[in-house]
Amino acid sequence: MSAMFGRVAVLGLGLIGGSFAAAVRRARLAERVVGYAPPPDGAAAVELGLVDETCADVAAALRGAELVMLAAPVTALPALFDEVAGCLPEAAIVTDCASTKRSVLAAARASLGNRAGRFVAGHPIAGSEHSGPRAARATLFEGAQVMVCPAAETGRQPCERVQALWRALGAHVVLLDADSHDRLYGELSHWPHAVAFALSAAVGTGAHAEDALRFAGGGLRDTTRIGASSPTLWADILLDNRDAVLESAQAFERELRSMSAAIREGRRDDLVALLARGSDWRRRLT
Amino acid sequence: MSAMFGRVAVLGLGLIGGSFAAAVRRARLAERVVGYAPPPDGAAAVELGLVDETCADVAAALRGAELVMLAAPVTALPALFDEVAGCLPEAAIVTDCASTKRSVLAAARASLGNRAGRFVAGHPIAGSEHSGPRAARATLFEGAQVMVCPAAETGRQPCERVQALWRALGAHVVLLDADSHDRLYGELSHWPHAVAFALSAAVGTGAHAEDALRFAGGGLRDTTRIGASSPTLWADILLDNRDAVLESAQAFERELRSMSAAIREGRRDDLVALLARGSDWRRRLT
Repeated sequence: MSAMFGRVAVLGLGLIGGSFAAAVRRARLAERVVGYAPPPDGAAAVELGLVDETCADVAAALRGAELVMLAAPVTALPALFDEVAGCLPEAAIVTDCASTKRSVLAAARASLGNRAGRFVAGHPIAGSEHSGPRAARATLFEGAQVMVCPAAETGRQPCERVQALWRALGAHVVLLDADSHDRLYGELSHWPHAVAFALSAAVGTGAHAEDALRFAGGGLRDTTRIGASSPTLWADILLDNRDAVLESAQAFERELRSMSAAIREGRRDDLVALLARGSDWRRRLT
Repeated sequence: MSAMFGRVAVLGLGLIGGSFAAAVRRARLAERVVGYAPPPDGAAAVELGLVDETCADVAAALRGAELVMLAAPVTALPALFDEVAGCLPEAAIVTDCASTKRSVLAAARASLGNRAGRFVAGHPIAGSEHSGPRAARATLFEGAQVMVCPAAETGRQPCERVQALWRALGAHVVLLDADSHDRLYGELSHWPHAVAFALSAAVGTGAHAEDALRFAGGGLRDTTRIGASSPTLWADILLDNRDAVLESAQAFERELRSMSAAIREGRRDDLVALLARGSDWRRRLT
């Protein structure tokens, strides 16, 4: 039986790219999985067995590739698309896994021109606060949801092959347009990251910063977990999805102000009602 | 070998009281563990095997008790102390596990008068967003930290016996005064609960409330987990520790405003620095 793909090239071998490469290898969905990443990630990825081979540059990785996964931070994608456009094999499919989708589709159109239909925008809802190839796991996408965001120009066959690949990795594919995606994840992921960073910063620069390391319970640990994520990666995501993020910020700050006022003024009934707005919903998230 | 205590009476059989009773039973630290809780928790606690027996009222539970654990919400404690004061056996030790300690010590003094030295204020750093006896687990305190907050009047022997009990349940005891405790946990636990409730409320009353239940990733789940906690319980804790909570609120809101402004104005370097304030500290919390 032949593999689903011939050569798969993964550009960027951090947590997500490394996990994708390892998952494709493990499931034998490609004849060969090659990667490219700036040092030191490239060498680490070979050493960790995430890829069959790392290449010296993008052009070498793309030679003969049937599928190209762009697993670079969102701000690196425009330049990467430009580079990919110059050496993309005939008929190769391109996909990505960045956290925002509108700007990525715009970058694909700008660089690929009339070949933009071969790009399929994707976003696996998986990851952790860790980064780099050493955080990669071949099982990262099992049971995860993957948002696939076809645009008007996206080719039907590339879109179906990318979906089939994610399903073969054990993921559940959800189709939605890039605008809806960015608004949804601005609220469900990007802004909550800002909240976790802010709570970490408040505790970590406050009077109890050292005591907190010894005496924090599970509540603070969980509430701040994603506050350990990469500041540069998340700054770029927050800026890239600015409008949706700021809208979520406003809604959150309204809740917070109401709570603070009810606490300050000792209005117990109002405070119970405000907290119940949160718990009523959160208890449904199982 | 005789048990550490004769009869132990646990007043309140929810998550914490039920877990304490079950842990003492399992470790055979008492000859008999009895409980009292308003319906339906009392009957459930017997059925679940958390206690040997539930009593019809506080007086019946206290008859012959050597140790009394008050495991009621912080606002219920003043009335409970009054009731306990009327039927406390000679030489019995009283302790508690509420989340705030200054108001509990004040209530103990008010009700117990010259017997206040037999009260030992405690706070196990354990629990979950669930509540009630069905959420109780005999292993809840294994490896947990328990803050014990002796006051000037606290007797040395009661304090040592309560510490020994917690250690026998596998917990690590930390001694600190009630003022420090309340300031520390206002920042490390009480305010983070408000943040999780507020984020849950913002998402749960927003445009994506239903989609969020299907498409939320691990980040939102963790950041909001404690937002599923009891609104009445937490309203009372937040109000009871108002000054410390509002101080934490201000520090958090300052971080949040700086981040929102940096996002709005596209100041990437500033945003990276603000996020790094959080991640630098959070990465040290292992």
